[in-house]
Amino acid sequence: MDSTIFLSEVVGTAILLLFGGGVVANVVLKGAKGHGGGFLLVNVGWALGVYCGVLTAYKSGAHLNPAVTLGLVAAGDPAAKAHLATYLVAQLLGAMIGALLCWLSYKDHFDAEPDPTSKLAVFSTIPAIRNPCMNLVTEIIGTFVLVFVVLAFGRHGDARGLAALGALPVALLVLGIGASLGGPTGYAINPARDLGPRLMHAILPIQGKGSSDWGYAWVPIVGPILGGVLAGLLAAPLLPI
Amino acid sequence: MDSTIFLSEVVGTAILLLFGGGVVANVVLKGAKGHGGGFLLVNVGWALGVYCGVLTAYKSGAHLNPAVTLGLVAAGDPAAKAHLATYLVAQLLGAMIGALLCWLSYKDHFDAEPDPTSKLAVFSTIPAIRNPCMNLVTEIIGTFVLVFVVLAFGRHGDARGLAALGALPVALLVLGIGASLGGPTGYAINPARDLGPRLMHAILPIQGKGSSDWGYAWVPIVGPILGGVLAGLLAAPLLPI
Amino acid sequence: MDSTIFLSEVVGTAILLLFGGGVVANVVLKGAKGHGGGFLLVNVGWALGVYCGVLTAYKSGAHLNPAVTLGLVAAGDPAAKAHLATYLVAQLLGAMIGALLCWLSYKDHFDAEPDPTSKLAVFSTIPAIRNPCMNLVTEIIGTFVLVFVVLAFGRHGDARGLAALGALPVALLVLGIGASLGGPTGYAINPARDLGPRLMHAILPIQGKGSSDWGYAWVPIVGPILGGVLAGLLAAPLLPI
Amino acid sequence: MDSTIFLSEVVGTAILLLFGGGVVANVVLKGAKGHGGGFLLVNVGWALGVYCGVLTAYKSGAHLNPAVTLGLVAAGDPAAKAHLATYLVAQLLGAMIGALLCWLSYKDHFDAEPDPTSKLAVFSTIPAIRNPCMNLVTEIIGTFVLVFVVLAFGRHGDARGLAALGALPVALLVLGIGASLGGPTGYAINPARDLGPRLMHAILPIQGKGSSDWGYAWVPIVGPILGGVLAGLLAAPLLPI
Repeated sequence: MDSTIFLSEVVGTAILLLFGGGVVANVVLKGAKGHGGGFLLVNVGWALGVYCGVLTAYKSGAHLNPAVTLGLVAAGDPAAKAHLATYLVAQLLGAMIGALLCWLSYKDHFDAEPDPTSKLAVFSTIPAIRNPCMNLVTEIIGTFVLVFVVLAFGRHGDARGLAALGALPVALLVLGIGASLGGPTGYAINPARDLGPRLMHAILPIQGKGSSDWGYAWVPIVGPILGGVLAGLLAAPLLPI
Repeated sequence: MDSTIFLSEVVGTAILLLFGGGVVANVVLKGAKGHGGGFLLVNVGWALGVYCGVLTAYKSGAHLNPAVTLGLVAAGDPAAKAHLATYLVAQLLGAMIGALLCWLSYKDHFDAEPDPTSKLAVFSTIPAIRNPCMNLVTEIIGTFVLVFVVLAFGRHGDARGLAALGALPVALLVLGIGASLGGPTGYAINPARDLGPRLMHAILPIQGKGSSDWGYAWVPIVGPILGGVLAGLLAAPLLPI
Repeated sequence: MDSTIFLSEVVGTAILLLFGGGVVANVVLKGAKGHGGGFLLVNVGWALGVYCGVLTAYKSGAHLNPAVTLGLVAAGDPAAKAHLATYLVAQLLGAMIGALLCWLSYKDHFDAEPDPTSKLAVFSTIPAIRNPCMNLVTEIIGTFVLVFVVLAFGRHGDARGLAALGALPVALLVLGIGASLGGPTGYAINPARDLGPRLMHAILPIQGKGSSDWGYAWVPIVGPILGGVLAGLLAAPLLPI
Repeated sequence: MDSTIFLSEVVGTAILLLFGGGVVANVVLKGAKGHGGGFLLVNVGWALGVYCGVLTAYKSGAHLNPAVTLGLVAAGDPAAKAHLATYLVAQLLGAMIGALLCWLSYKDHFDAEPDPTSKLAVFSTIPAIRNPCMNLVTEIIGTFVLVFVVLAFGRHGDARGLAALGALPVALLVLGIGASLGGPTGYAINPARDLGPRLMHAILPIQGKGSSDWGYAWVPIVGPILGGVLAGLLAAPLLPI
């Protein structure tokens, strides 16, 4: 196991989930100062979680997402293939740590919030209209765009000078996916982002918590993996160099 | 036909419309998580559609808009002139594909939404006050600014180091046009962006859909073309090098 | 008269006012799609007006504001001093043209809006609490920050690589001034931005318009000039190189 | 005492507090144009205060925050250690000056506002749910992230070209911390940012002011110091180079 990749992915994914869970807590939990702050605020929090997570995890290439890692494998990236298990385990562990820190940050607001669904929403995605088939389609399309445009950075980046911007393009990409494609399912677009916190929701002694909604848990795992792999396979034919 | 230009423009315009239509769906369709999220959220979604579309379509120069292509022709750009038909066909086709993917992403919310006008709004622009003459003026001014500032990038870009920012300046430009000039007509400022999705609205089996409002369809085609060509003609005299 | 400076400042200031007036029209005029869109939307529109105006006016250094020009004169800039009259006349003319284009873009919404104060607000600033003495203080502080930080760019810019960002730092600066210091007076921070449109408000045949509020007009002229000159004088002693 | 460091930190921290206090005044004080503008507007104002403050204070490294200075000392930075007292005194003084300028900018709105808690909120942080133990945890986590990611810039910055962005990454970091971790305590994450203005609140003749809430004052001092030092100690082991 490559400890640099492991550490980078754990730290970066923890920061992603601390910011991402945090902004949802701020908007949905009772009494928080950002309560009712709107969908754009949520999108901004997640995007900046990506931004700060990517900044800290640059040594591993900052995947922070099994759908990105698997998309890179599908696109033929040798490093992603060689360290696949390290990436996946670190991402899941990082997501769990981020969710734990988020819960600690908002502990009193979790206790003050009466609605168990709002508590779960800080950890995992919940579809607006529950329909696994179409929810899966939405997650596939959203993750396809994520991985496809990330691969486009890789192919065109230097030529356009985008490398000079570091983490910003990925943050803007996730801001856009959230704003535009987050409406139906809350844009998991990342299996670790959904599964890690859901495990923490099940484990942690959250006062007045309800179900961890395991019946839905496969959708934000399978959808992003399918979307990411599809993007990895189609990036080369669809993106002329 | 240049297949690189064709493919780039199809992919880039599809991403533009997927994001652009998506954010409108998120804000206007019943039950979506961004419902009622406000005009700034809409502007952000469109701007980031431009951003991601430009990133993926850099091989063709990322026009993604017949008004840009025709403005470049008017400004004397030889590549735009030589491949004019390829650009226009690819942009229209890409816009249709993006609208289709948007509809799939929000399928259940289209079904849940009772108002046919809200459904059409996800595809095409609808003026706030219907008055073709003044709606045309608004579209001409908005598109003039779009193409004029894009041409200013081309003239001043390298000197100011803007090339290092890649797609960001165009995204910020479209964010500003949306925020400032989008109030009366919803800022088509792109004939393909309006016509392509309107065709899809007419074709797709959208549950409970109403009219595709073909009576208005010429305004967001003619206005942007006039504005873009005017900007192409005036850029050289008004922008000292 | 230097025609390059003149043309650049006219075009850049016209774009600034078209965006700036436009976003206010979008938020305050009846029936516009951004109606009630909030203060942040207004700040974003003005900031992107600065961004696009600066991009197009780079040949003149993109002052777009007599307070910036006079601040540069106070700081000892020889070009600003040599072409002072050209800058000021071009900025006023550009602001008038931008206000005219804004009115044309929102013509039907001006006609539909019953409140004359809302119509004036699209053109010129109106204090929240009318008190010329404190309104002057607010405008002095806001413009001081604007010119002081712009001069800091000039002193530190290259060393920090900010030149690579072009117009973005100034746009972010104005976004911040608007968000933070725009509450009491609506942040003119630019004599041309207020006087040019106020003249157009007086001249144009705006249906149902009220007073052009000339009694307040001196505040957003005198305040920004004082703030800008003060910044020009204090930049050297307060900003170690 | 190094006068360049002193002057830079005073000016930069004053700008930070003028913007930061200003946006809170705009959102909470009666009659301000941004009244009720929402949490994202507040986050944007603080982030751009950081942005402009960092731009003007580049000669001192733009700490603007005792938690950053102490975090750098903990990480072994020799300059921070050698000039520790200069940094801390300048930051506190700058924060007081910024709070004074903010009060002057919004003087009439302070007078018009009936609620003393709203007046205090412009100066210092107030927890949403008063619970010193958990409030401390939230401030520790928020400041840990701030200093940890700032140190990550320093370690990875050049390699990723982030230096080219100057103050922007720090502003985006603070925007994200505000959006995601600001809900429980209002994110002091900076002892000078809270203590300096609280002193001014106690000193200034603010009409109808209430208590300066000294009972809470230790939390936004101790929490950020602990978080910053912890980040300084953990940055090297957790961030592979």
